[in-house]
Formats: sequence, structure tokens, C-alpha cells
Amino acid sequence: MKDELKRKILFPAGDKLPEMFSRYFTGQAYWAPLTQNKDLNCPISNVTFEPACRNNWHSHTGGQILVAVSGKGYYQEKGKPARLLQPGDVVEIAPDVVHWHGAAPDSWFSHLAIETNPQTNKNTWLDSVKDEEYFAATAE
Amino acid sequence: MKDELKRKILFPAGDKLPEMFSRYFTGQAYWAPLTQNKDLNCPISNVTFEPACRNNWHSHTGGQILVAVSGKGYYQEKGKPARLLQPGDVVEIAPDVVHWHGAAPDSWFSHLAIETNPQTNKNTWLDSVKDEEYFAATAE
Repeated sequence: MKDELKRKILFPAGDKLPEMFSRYFTGQAYWAPLTQNKDLNCPISNVTFEPACRNNWHSHTGGQILVAVSGKGYYQEKGKPARLLQPGDVVEIAPDVVHWHGAAPDSWFSHLAIETNPQTNKNTWLDSVKDEEYFAATAE
Repeated sequence: MKDELKRKILFPAGDKLPEMFSRYFTGQAYWAPLTQNKDLNCPISNVTFEPACRNNWHSHTGGQILVAVSGKGYYQEKGKPARLLQPGDVVEIAPDVVHWHGAAPDSWFSHLAIETNPQTNKNTWLDSVKDEEYFAATAE
């Protein structure tokens, strides 16, 4: 990853996503956990996507919150137009809503990912976001 | 608040803190809620402190997480040296730990405040951080 990007995202970029997650991503992403205290029930990590990288369609039984912190990305819920994300944007993902998120085709993107209701949360991973689908959704 | 600052903090600055909170602050702070969905159990707001503004010593039964996003601030736990906070720094405040946070004497400061374990959390507000105490803690 470019040094310039590392400076811009404020938060640590971390390492390449471990295989248990990267298998559900198209393209390369990086992952840095930012919290440790389990009593807080609020795991926060920084996820950085290379241009055009995105995760599969998926849902969380406990929901999730994204806080965009660098670059340009997208969030899309099944059946809705993709939403452009820029630094400062917050996405509240309700439990069980099928969605994907990732970088714009021409930009790196970092967001904080907050696992909500981690005491009971389970993730369900679905199909990858095919190129045709991704480029159509992010072309507007 | 200066327009320049508003642009720099990325997140909305919001309005002056309501009296139910401002009574526990020394100096002027601003507050912008960033989330709405109660099912996520993860209320996030952006808090902006004018220079030298800080809150009283206090604790949260459910803990709290701070994410510094703009300017320069401090976090201090009772009996420990104050910790300098700059954009990208994350503070995990364990349940019942007595602490305060606020701006540096010479800088505005904004942090995201995440209420953890909101289902049961209660705040306990204690003494204000007196000028002598504040300037000594932030002088290092």
C-alpha cells in the first residue's frame, strides 16, 4: 500500500485480511483491529479496500455501523441504488439487511467497521458482487 | 464556531451541548448525534470542544469508546498522567473508570463518543476539573 495512503487514513491500515474473511472479498483489503476490551461489546476495526475491491453480499444478525474515514467507497443494500461514501459518512446497517461495501472503481477506501450486538451477532456470507453488477452500481 | 474548523472535522459539529450535559463541562462544547437505530445498541455522537474546554471527572457503568477525529485533546484517568489525543487515536474506557476528556489549552478538539453497553449504562458525574489541575495535566 502506498505510504501516501497510510498517512491519509489516520488509522492503522494493518495487514492483509486473513483468509477467513478474504475469501468473501473480491480484490485486496487490509484490516486493523482498533479495540481490545471485550467488556465494551463494541469491536472496532479499520478496513481498507484497494480500488474496485468489495465484499460479497452479506448480512449480520446483530447489524453493523460503518464510518467512512478516507477515500471514496460505496454501500449498497439489496434492491436499492448504491450509496456513495466519503469521509465522515456513517452507515447504520440494520440486522439481517443484505448488503455489500467496498471501494470506488478509481479510489482506495477506508472505513471503520463497528460490530454491533457482538454478544449474539452472526454473519451470513452470500454471492460475490460480480464485475457487471459492481460497475453498474458504481457508475452513477 | 469557525467555518474552517467545521470543514476540518469531517463530521457534523452540531449544536451547543444541551444543558443536561453542559452543566458537567467547563467551557463550550458542541454535540452532533450521528446514529439513530436503537436496535444496534451503539449510539455514536461527535463532540467538539473549544480550546481548554473539558468535562468533569466522571464514569460510565457501561464504559465508553472515544475516537479522536480532529485537533488536539487529552484524556486522563484518575491517578494517571493525561494522554495526548490526536486524530486516529482510540480510547477504550472500561466500566466505572473515573476520567475526563477535552481539548488542549491551545486547540479545538473533536472526538466521536461511542456509548457502550447502552442497555444498562449509567453515567456518574463528579467534580469539575479545576484550572490548576487541567493546566498541570496538559502542560507536559
